[in-house]
Amino acid sequence: MVSEECLRLIHKKIAKGTLSEDEISLIVNEISDDKFSETELTAFFVSLATNGLTEEEMIAFTKALRESGNILRFEKHPVITKHSIGGIPGNEVSLIIVPIIAAAGLTIPKTATHAITSPCGTLDVAEIFCPVELSPEETKRVVEKTNGCIVSGKSVGLAPAIDKMLDAVSSLRIDPKQLMVASIIAKTAALDVDYLLMDIPTGKKAKAAHISEAERLATVFTAVGQSINLKVECAITPGDKPVGSRLGVSLEAASLLRTLKNEEWGEKANKSTSLAGIMLELTGKCEPGAGKELATKIITSGKALKKLNEIVEAQGGSLDVDLSPGDSKFDVCAPVSGVVYGFDNQALTSIARVAGAPKDKQAGIELWVRRGDKVEKGQKLYTIYSSSEARLDKAIELAQRHDAILMERPILKLVTPRRLDTESSL
Amino acid sequence: MVSEECLRLIHKKIAKGTLSEDEISLIVNEISDDKFSETELTAFFVSLATNGLTEEEMIAFTKALRESGNILRFEKHPVITKHSIGGIPGNEVSLIIVPIIAAAGLTIPKTATHAITSPCGTLDVAEIFCPVELSPEETKRVVEKTNGCIVSGKSVGLAPAIDKMLDAVSSLRIDPKQLMVASIIAKTAALDVDYLLMDIPTGKKAKAAHISEAERLATVFTAVGQSINLKVECAITPGDKPVGSRLGVSLEAASLLRTLKNEEWGEKANKSTSLAGIMLELTGKCEPGAGKELATKIITSGKALKKLNEIVEAQGGSLDVDLSPGDSKFDVCAPVSGVVYGFDNQALTSIARVAGAPKDKQAGIELWVRRGDKVEKGQKLYTIYSSSEARLDKAIELAQRHDAILMERPILKLVTPRRLDTESSL
Repeated sequence: MVSEECLRLIHKKIAKGTLSEDEISLIVNEISDDKFSETELTAFFVSLATNGLTEEEMIAFTKALRESGNILRFEKHPVITKHSIGGIPGNEVSLIIVPIIAAAGLTIPKTATHAITSPCGTLDVAEIFCPVELSPEETKRVVEKTNGCIVSGKSVGLAPAIDKMLDAVSSLRIDPKQLMVASIIAKTAALDVDYLLMDIPTGKKAKAAHISEAERLATVFTAVGQSINLKVECAITPGDKPVGSRLGVSLEAASLLRTLKNEEWGEKANKSTSLAGIMLELTGKCEPGAGKELATKIITSGKALKKLNEIVEAQGGSLDVDLSPGDSKFDVCAPVSGVVYGFDNQALTSIARVAGAPKDKQAGIELWVRRGDKVEKGQKLYTIYSSSEARLDKAIELAQRHDAILMERPILKLVTPRRLDTESSL
Repeated sequence: MVSEECLRLIHKKIAKGTLSEDEISLIVNEISDDKFSETELTAFFVSLATNGLTEEEMIAFTKALRESGNILRFEKHPVITKHSIGGIPGNEVSLIIVPIIAAAGLTIPKTATHAITSPCGTLDVAEIFCPVELSPEETKRVVEKTNGCIVSGKSVGLAPAIDKMLDAVSSLRIDPKQLMVASIIAKTAALDVDYLLMDIPTGKKAKAAHISEAERLATVFTAVGQSINLKVECAITPGDKPVGSRLGVSLEAASLLRTLKNEEWGEKANKSTSLAGIMLELTGKCEPGAGKELATKIITSGKALKKLNEIVEAQGGSLDVDLSPGDSKFDVCAPVSGVVYGFDNQALTSIARVAGAPKDKQAGIELWVRRGDKVEKGQKLYTIYSSSEARLDKAIELAQRHDAILMERPILKLVTPRRLDTESSL
């Protein structure tokens, strides 16, 4: 149970009050020390989600979060990492970026999470190759040996207070943007990072729906980072369709290896080298404008593949694993002829998750069309994979109820007077 | 000069007051009788644009507008017509729809305007074939002979008060949606119309930016129509790219004829038959769901072409005219390789207008790519035509400053901390 003083502070936030640095520090300490019950965590979380935080409160919160957990120190600087605000299917580019940056001689400790809402998170892909639940000491050893790592932020014990709060309210499926910023910046700062590149996907159903919202979020990330000497750069990226054409653990892992083996060059490779290029420029590894070319060369020369192999082996795994998708599969075909207009990311995510992703590593979706493709009625649009016939059936049912791939059409919606007559009187 | 009473009503609206039916009627009458000076018209217009109109005021305004001008009566009912809220390049589908509907035996008096903001209006295309400034008597004669017409609403003298107000403030380039609704409904009702199909294009830079805005607008159109026994149906259509691939008078007219001659079947034909299909279903000319097929058949059988020829001849013109685009032309090529993501309608419109459209009938743009096309650097994206080398040069300059065709890219925008350091302190 929380202290009387802390309870008073929860009441203060519920009553729309502003908390001082000391008050926030007290709350974060009591959360870290497991003094908060689930009810108390929820009450504090909802008061934050409803009443928000001032900029000073956010900075204090971020500092207190960072100091609530382990802080790692690395000898070789600059230390750089990247993060995404998440929510976009297929956006697993960290496993391409980490080996590029590490191969370029920079230190890149990458912590990640399992997928919360998307079909597959960075950690889901990583753990098909190697253990990801490393202790702080193990993490330090891997990074000092290979320049990089891909591990669970939770197991390293970074800013545990935020994870306790998020775990307590996970059933609510509320993700306040201010907590997301505080969590990402606090965990990154706890890893001794000098530079952070944020990927902010933007689009209708993305977390940042409009570019103005993405810009506002970028300013907050930058300002909070600045308050603790972390240089944050934000790349606003397209979030209105999946990144690449494969969703799900095995499918994305296979795609990743094909890219690093220089056997295919898709959208994910394009995005990864753009982001890695910014990171190389930011740290002075190359002239401004030359980053993407350098990042590309690190892949095509085979150095990135070699580096990923080193990292995976240092974490105790191997790249030599079976990456075939599930035997149960179904082709979803075009219900009408027409031109592909766009993708419903939420529908694709739901279908992939019902098929079993990310727990079922063999579950996922492979897209056969891209925006602008002309398709005939009955033509294959995408394939759903699963390792369970029963889950596949449920995914097919969902796919038949929701159009995951949108076709161009001359009329979007018809508003008729008959409906007005009968249903409403205005 | 307006009467003392009317001046008091202008003051009342500026002070956010609500006007009664009689008060609105007095204002509209004094505008029609040219009592309003330009200053007084502007003051009233701005007070409407700022303070809006209640639903009762809008209905009273629409009724007063209709009664302020000529009212035509037709013997053959049902009378049906269509209108668009405008603003989308290439959206000239009326010259395909009018002959389809007239050929199906329905009465369709179509009034239109010259382009205000787009590269080409319905009236601009129509007058390349025939006179469009018809008197009320001439209009009635043409419709009774052929079932249809395409004429200037201004010359028929429909709701002149609205045109006087819009002319007075045209330099302001403000287009309040409530005046647009009142104007369209009043003019349509003055043509003895039973059914109106509204086309509401929706997209980022369109007049209705979001589908929710389009729906709100549709509800207002429907409600105001209902108040004067006009059944309004609204089709919400895509407005985030041009309709079809040709913009400008000659180019659009040539495309129209090729469609009616069954020599090409593009996006404009697809949209026209969808809209005409709704109109055929609405008036009971066919079963629900069978409209598009019937509309298509009226084109492919040659009946629509024959009907357009009849209408154009009845208005004193001919379809046999030179429709070649200007001799001065320039190919705009892709600055980078990539995939076509979308179109900037405002940039396309500006380029076409600077090239001379719509006054220069031979000016315009022909697009060579569509969304999703993969293009190589240097590949032809679109051609600008003009009949003047000097205007073409200005259009080229504009095309080089603004990307009218947008390419997919992995990063939309980069937000950097350096800018924050130097330019803002948050």
